[in-house]
Amino acid sequence: MDYRGRERRIADELRKHDAALLVTHLPNVRYLCGFTGSAGVLLIGDGKSSFFTDGRYREQARAEVHGAKVIIPKGAILDAAARAVVDSKIRFLGVEADHLSFAAESKVARAVRPRTRMRPTQGLVETRRIIKEAAEIDRIRAAVQLGSSLFETAVAAIHPGVPEQAVAAELEYAARKAGADGMSFETIVAAGARSALPHGRATGQHIPRRGFVVLDFGVILAGYCSDMTRTVHVGRPTAQAREMYDAVRDAQLAAIEAVRPGRQVAEVDQAARSVLERARLARYFTHSTGHGVGLEIHEPPRIAGGQKDLIQPGMVITIEPGVYVPGFGGVRIEDMVVVTEKSCQVLTPTTKEFLTV
Amino acid sequence: MDYRGRERRIADELRKHDAALLVTHLPNVRYLCGFTGSAGVLLIGDGKSSFFTDGRYREQARAEVHGAKVIIPKGAILDAAARAVVDSKIRFLGVEADHLSFAAESKVARAVRPRTRMRPTQGLVETRRIIKEAAEIDRIRAAVQLGSSLFETAVAAIHPGVPEQAVAAELEYAARKAGADGMSFETIVAAGARSALPHGRATGQHIPRRGFVVLDFGVILAGYCSDMTRTVHVGRPTAQAREMYDAVRDAQLAAIEAVRPGRQVAEVDQAARSVLERARLARYFTHSTGHGVGLEIHEPPRIAGGQKDLIQPGMVITIEPGVYVPGFGGVRIEDMVVVTEKSCQVLTPTTKEFLTV
Repeated sequence: MDYRGRERRIADELRKHDAALLVTHLPNVRYLCGFTGSAGVLLIGDGKSSFFTDGRYREQARAEVHGAKVIIPKGAILDAAARAVVDSKIRFLGVEADHLSFAAESKVARAVRPRTRMRPTQGLVETRRIIKEAAEIDRIRAAVQLGSSLFETAVAAIHPGVPEQAVAAELEYAARKAGADGMSFETIVAAGARSALPHGRATGQHIPRRGFVVLDFGVILAGYCSDMTRTVHVGRPTAQAREMYDAVRDAQLAAIEAVRPGRQVAEVDQAARSVLERARLARYFTHSTGHGVGLEIHEPPRIAGGQKDLIQPGMVITIEPGVYVPGFGGVRIEDMVVVTEKSCQVLTPTTKEFLTV
Repeated sequence: MDYRGRERRIADELRKHDAALLVTHLPNVRYLCGFTGSAGVLLIGDGKSSFFTDGRYREQARAEVHGAKVIIPKGAILDAAARAVVDSKIRFLGVEADHLSFAAESKVARAVRPRTRMRPTQGLVETRRIIKEAAEIDRIRAAVQLGSSLFETAVAAIHPGVPEQAVAAELEYAARKAGADGMSFETIVAAGARSALPHGRATGQHIPRRGFVVLDFGVILAGYCSDMTRTVHVGRPTAQAREMYDAVRDAQLAAIEAVRPGRQVAEVDQAARSVLERARLARYFTHSTGHGVGLEIHEPPRIAGGQKDLIQPGMVITIEPGVYVPGFGGVRIEDMVVVTEKSCQVLTPTTKEFLTV
């Protein structure tokens, strides 16, 4: 991981504006200096950087942090960072306005005035995280492989009468045993009528004799997230169920086909939507087509209508159209893809055949 | 759960100040109206309340939300809440300054000015959550019982050569199968020299032939958290290990003994510290003695030196002194207790005998 390069590029930018940047969003902290703990802030200043954490992370910070001096203050870490700003005599302090509470911002602003003035920033580090380095893509690929390897375990656990939670239990157990750091979000197992809920995390409800089961899950491995969805059918499918499934799969394949550098992300969304329009199912596709994935499970870009970001090599995104018919059920199919020089490569190796359990 | 009572008491308070309150911290939202999803804000105004969420939670919000009108706006939920504030002509808008980003606060402030002025608040709802209702204590008790039932499974998985993560896997698998919604924090399995890290979440490191293993874990059941720690010993313990264990257990029992309504929480912390001072181990007790638990794993009050909060019936807190000797190992023992009219009741039924694996 090119921590020093990442930090230097931001420091160069800051120097032009006589500014420092207080990085408070932990995934951004990790991206810029490598720290993986749960408490710490990074101050990128003029030519030198400081990382502030508490005593619990003394050893870990020394082992992990690149390119910044590790400081373990006696009091609160934000107070210590503010004192360092005062000492540095920097004129402007950039803060991550989406990742600093109003209370904390006020406290820091009071501590650094009058010499230093606050400058809210948004997405300054996130924008840089959109394009992954080769080493990041390797880690993402490994996470996706591990995630995908869990699918068979989950399918084997699906039987009528089994609670959704039991399927999630088998899947998460297999993830841990395979070495995952944890799950990248709450596992979704949504069976029968619940499959029509786009966000149906596993509950105690039993799997019915007949209907769809949506499985949406991911792991964290070496800090990077995976995300995939497959939908299987319990019992004999109706013609309507088969048609729904085929339409979603065709939409998903069309969206993958549309991922090409230079296009707007909205075109990828539209590619999925057009297929579902022809199948008269577009009104049941109630969310966007995908999102970036990396250190966080949801990162820029959003693959949605109206979004004009251009697709670029090195982006890693999900492609996950879905159709949700209230009272009947839902289907979603999701892969992760990495954008290449001319098109994209699908990372998720799992089959998209219609599976009956 | 007395959602309407909770909300009414806050609304009565707000009325005196010609103010509304925008509740953005999800555990506070849940506490006040019952919503369990991952996106939503509650606006408590003069005589009526509104809950704003997005389309994913349409059905869930209608089923769960008490005492507030459910609104699914077309655009962003914070924008819609701001518009409702403008329409209500309320003079002051309280916001949760610790749980609203600087960017969001600025946006809402711009949207509601000039008629409405922002008023940052801190801990307004959290303070009320400190004293649990009987129905909450029932749920916490059930979560603690479930958590405690996992201890045997974890101990059975501990063998020299097994990775810490495998122990966590067995424990979490058992939790899921027993019906837990999930774990309340990242499971700590810290073996051998790693047991000297107060925050040693399970890694790929193998359990050694001899030494302590700290197990710190909790579940979420029906929204409420459990939290417990036990330390077991692999192989034959040295005299030093036994002494350390006995001192921590005595400190933990002394702190529990000190939990009485009317005392300051700092006295509970001191009770544990005094025992460790006599054993010449106090300098290795590097954290505070405990914290509140409920909808969140860490809630007020903090059971620490200098904290003057008074212990009151209905508080639910952890008592968890620990001793960490770098290079040798660590011991922590943690129970949850509920404060009664005259003393407290220990909720965690697990033995504190010295266990050798």
